[in-house]
Amino acid sequence: MISPALYLIPSTMSDAPATNVLPQFNIELVSEIRHYVVENVRTTRRFLKRCNPAIDIDALTFTVLDEHTDPAEVPAMLAPIAGGHPVGVISEAGCPAVADPGADLVAAAQERGIEVIPLVGPSSIIMALMGSGFNGQTFAFNGYLPHDAKARAEKLREMERLIRSRRQTQIFIETPYRNNRLIAELCSSLPSGMRLCVASDITGPTQEIITLPLAAWAKKKYNYDKKPTIFLLYS
Amino acid sequence: MISPALYLIPSTMSDAPATNVLPQFNIELVSEIRHYVVENVRTTRRFLKRCNPAIDIDALTFTVLDEHTDPAEVPAMLAPIAGGHPVGVISEAGCPAVADPGADLVAAAQERGIEVIPLVGPSSIIMALMGSGFNGQTFAFNGYLPHDAKARAEKLREMERLIRSRRQTQIFIETPYRNNRLIAELCSSLPSGMRLCVASDITGPTQEIITLPLAAWAKKKYNYDKKPTIFLLYS
Repeated sequence: MISPALYLIPSTMSDAPATNVLPQFNIELVSEIRHYVVENVRTTRRFLKRCNPAIDIDALTFTVLDEHTDPAEVPAMLAPIAGGHPVGVISEAGCPAVADPGADLVAAAQERGIEVIPLVGPSSIIMALMGSGFNGQTFAFNGYLPHDAKARAEKLREMERLIRSRRQTQIFIETPYRNNRLIAELCSSLPSGMRLCVASDITGPTQEIITLPLAAWAKKKYNYDKKPTIFLLYS
Repeated sequence: MISPALYLIPSTMSDAPATNVLPQFNIELVSEIRHYVVENVRTTRRFLKRCNPAIDIDALTFTVLDEHTDPAEVPAMLAPIAGGHPVGVISEAGCPAVADPGADLVAAAQERGIEVIPLVGPSSIIMALMGSGFNGQTFAFNGYLPHDAKARAEKLREMERLIRSRRQTQIFIETPYRNNRLIAELCSSLPSGMRLCVASDITGPTQEIITLPLAAWAKKKYNYDKKPTIFLLYS
């Protein structure tokens, strides 16, 4: 019997076997939870089947929480917990509630004094930081860089300043079809001695985590087009 | 046969069983690696025994990398890899190379073009962020708050500004015997409507992740004295 709480259940980020990236505890837990709040029902069904091929998917309830969900509908998703049933949150890839709408559900649970239990799983942000060799004592995750040219140039200058003055590692992402252009842009906009780490397909079959000075990236052959990739900058 | 690379192996953060917080892949991997770079030999031996009670500890080599290590000695720790042998990095608790000297070893590996492979494991920073309900689209980990009163007051004002202007979740830690005093200080220094999440003993038997407005913390009974705790602020 597991306690009636809100369980934040990381999912696999690639086609890696679940046992490569998730503790056995998580894999057993998903067989005990009946009520799920998910970003995408189809990918969640597939994920649950991979955790437990014998799982009875039809016995489960799935409520969608994505960027189109009306915030007013979020608190009702916690209702099973009041009835003594745990609720699991699963996002499309990686850790729920870190960069997706699950955070609203967690906030609603916290407001109501409902216990929230995050589970261990793959976080591309932390794994990229581990593999970069950059400062992990202080770092910032910036999400997507702005697309507007002026705001984008300002953001790059701000990151450069924070690296110099605070020694704060700067982490960010880009729409995957712009990955290659972004690297070229960083090479032409920032000091050539600054180091860039490109962490691509984390936990996947083509995983690559490469740290080089921008001067070396400018001469290197690479192709990260459409691959899930995280970028990190440091002096 | 595992490839000769630098493996970053998270360790358990509490007395939780290894299978609760580490993928089976990690548990099997530690039985195949012979060369370790570790923050603390005693805790690493205990960790390895818990992963595999049959492990032959005497067949392993341990090199210490801690805050007292001469940086000039770090690159030599990669020597087994050139000979075809993988090297594992294990820090005292949680993810190596995120907030410990392991990052220097990773940087040395990156400079030499040696493959770096981070494994999945418990990160108290990410798990606290998941459980907080705060913004995970942009967040900063600030390490320890300064102890000097003036620098500390400035840091609090800066975090308040970044929360308001950037909606950037602010994450930080404190020397554990000062945890209770820090909460009182935050209550008296910052706006009462700002929300504080206190995430304590993550993955441990007394795990508690509580988000409340500072006004509610000011009235609440709590005791986080000497417990490993992460603090998060958001509006």
